Amino acid sequence: MSEQDNKAQSEEQARERISDLRKIELSINQWVESLLTGDRLSLAKGITLLESTRIEDHEKSTLLLNALLPHTGKSWRIGITGVPGVGKSTLIEQLGLNFIQNGHKVAVLAIDPSSRLSAGSILGDKTRMNELAVNDSAFIRPSPASDSLGGVARMTRESMMLCEAAGYDIIIVETVGVGQSETEVHDMVDTFLLLMLAGAGDELQGIKRGIMEMADVIAVTKADTENLQRAQQARTSISSAIHLFAGNEEQWVVPVITCSTVNEDGINELLHKVESHRIHIESAGFKTERRKKQNLFWFKKSLEEQIIHDILNKEDLINEIEQQKIAILQNKISPFTAANELVKRIKIKYFN
Amino acid sequence: MSEQDNKAQSEEQARERISDLRKIELSINQWVESLLTGDRLSLAKGITLLESTRIEDHEKSTLLLNALLPHTGKSWRIGITGVPGVGKSTLIEQLGLNFIQNGHKVAVLAIDPSSRLSAGSILGDKTRMNELAVNDSAFIRPSPASDSLGGVARMTRESMMLCEAAGYDIIIVETVGVGQSETEVHDMVDTFLLLMLAGAGDELQGIKRGIMEMADVIAVTKADTENLQRAQQARTSISSAIHLFAGNEEQWVVPVITCSTVNEDGINELLHKVESHRIHIESAGFKTERRKKQNLFWFKKSLEEQIIHDILNKEDLINEIEQQKIAILQNKISPFTAANELVKRIKIKYFN
Repeated sequence: MSEQDNKAQSEEQARERISDLRKIELSINQWVESLLTGDRLSLAKGITLLESTRIEDHEKSTLLLNALLPHTGKSWRIGITGVPGVGKSTLIEQLGLNFIQNGHKVAVLAIDPSSRLSAGSILGDKTRMNELAVNDSAFIRPSPASDSLGGVARMTRESMMLCEAAGYDIIIVETVGVGQSETEVHDMVDTFLLLMLAGAGDELQGIKRGIMEMADVIAVTKADTENLQRAQQARTSISSAIHLFAGNEEQWVVPVITCSTVNEDGINELLHKVESHRIHIESAGFKTERRKKQNLFWFKKSLEEQIIHDILNKEDLINEIEQQKIAILQNKISPFTAANELVKRIKIKYFN
Repeated sequence: MSEQDNKAQSEEQARERISDLRKIELSINQWVESLLTGDRLSLAKGITLLESTRIEDHEKSTLLLNALLPHTGKSWRIGITGVPGVGKSTLIEQLGLNFIQNGHKVAVLAIDPSSRLSAGSILGDKTRMNELAVNDSAFIRPSPASDSLGGVARMTRESMMLCEAAGYDIIIVETVGVGQSETEVHDMVDTFLLLMLAGAGDELQGIKRGIMEMADVIAVTKADTENLQRAQQARTSISSAIHLFAGNEEQWVVPVITCSTVNEDGINELLHKVESHRIHIESAGFKTERRKKQNLFWFKKSLEEQIIHDILNKEDLINEIEQQKIAILQNKISPFTAANELVKRIKIKYFN
């Protein structure tokens, strides 16, 4: 091929690329418009785009998010966590329908870290929230199965933004009480609701360390029939424990209540407490502060995780790190010396 | 200068360097020998070397640590935390003297994150542990004031190793209940003792979130005279709260006791509980497991922190990160998009 041909070809490619970008932009603009009117299909497709692992979709989803940014952030974000069997779905249905009765639009997103293994234990089908699923003012979306770095947290946060742009003013994020997911959910919501179950003894089952101290509202569920007394005892224990923790900056006293989704005892009280928390954090600018902190937190976390991931996953380093670990476990080198020496080599080889 | 002169000079420099290294090695060998006999001065000088920020001292301290490694790890490491005024020093003195009576050698190290500001509130002088300070079987060392990255944790961990090599078979690490220091101490000891104070109400004062769930033994101090009843109530509340947490892998039930350093009530019980924990974790290999995990944790943490620190503190990036933060807070860009774009630029500019 002559030089001229080459030039002509690369000009042609550039034109095609620009034309492609224009097409993408146009389609994004249409997408944004219909999503802003609350079109459910556009919203669903938008979330699917966020979940896509294809490189060309990343570009699109960034364009979509940037266009929607001015329309996000106006919702009340509620996180709900608790072990499997605590009654999250039933309670979310009751809360959701109640919000809708009061004129709100409710989106429910679910994070289920176990879904990669169990093929989805929460929201695997929508049948567990019968009434909410068919309600026009509700949007329910199961968890994306992602193995990627911080992937689920990112997708959930960005899905929240899409829902907000589509006019959902209450976003409920559901997660099971295992793994890291509750901590992540706590760092992306305004109100964090912990559901607990009174156990056989005076122990509450399976609640992960540190979670109780993050909760804004705690409810002991299944407080009915033969379980009622145990639930009330658990409530007392939890209340007493809550007092042991240092007060938080937001000056909020965490309410602990019992409730039953069978006879609906306590459901109104729960709604009321959750609503009180909203009023409390909106009143003195706490919500704005919390969101600012969360945004900076996710920026820092995402930045650091990506850098660490990119550097430490270089093939020769994976091997070297494993060797250092073995040396450390054999007490041949101190962990700090091992880290220092590795960092020295990484600096020479990979960055300046 | 001729080429020959040049060559002669660089050969001379190389010889000098080798001779310097031999001298250092010889002095390190002598140092190691006298430290292994338990010489207090060598131990104290060793810790001072670890604390030094001079580059040439880093090389020496690495040599020293490497030589001592085979002689480390044989102690029982106890962490003690609690807010100022809870009675840590008095209790450490009583525990320490008791251990010494039973034939042990006790080293006390202190981490005080506030010391940089307040010029040392714990162990600022040794007078707060009168008897222990003058005992031949005790070694007390105040906290190094370090602003460097993970510096205090590293120094404390390596100081522990030096103490172990010098024959101290019980190492007590003291820290105040503020900042990150208790978490770090928890990650470097075998037994973590939390001291609490009954407050004016039913609240316990100032205890940081998440700390209670890390404790292996909890003691409510100052349980005497007019404070006795409040302390006993606090004990009940704490016991009840402890039951709410999920059991840990080590199958240890955290004991909660009250004690007084005034009338010595409960001190024997405390000693007994702490000792029970030692027996428990040593019995089924839990101690070995815990230390393995801790070593790998510090390796990973130190490695990641250094990489992040080296990259993100490049002058142009500091500025860019600040600009991105402003854009995020103004809702002009999503935190994840901001992080992605920054990572792309960092990769092009700083590493391959």
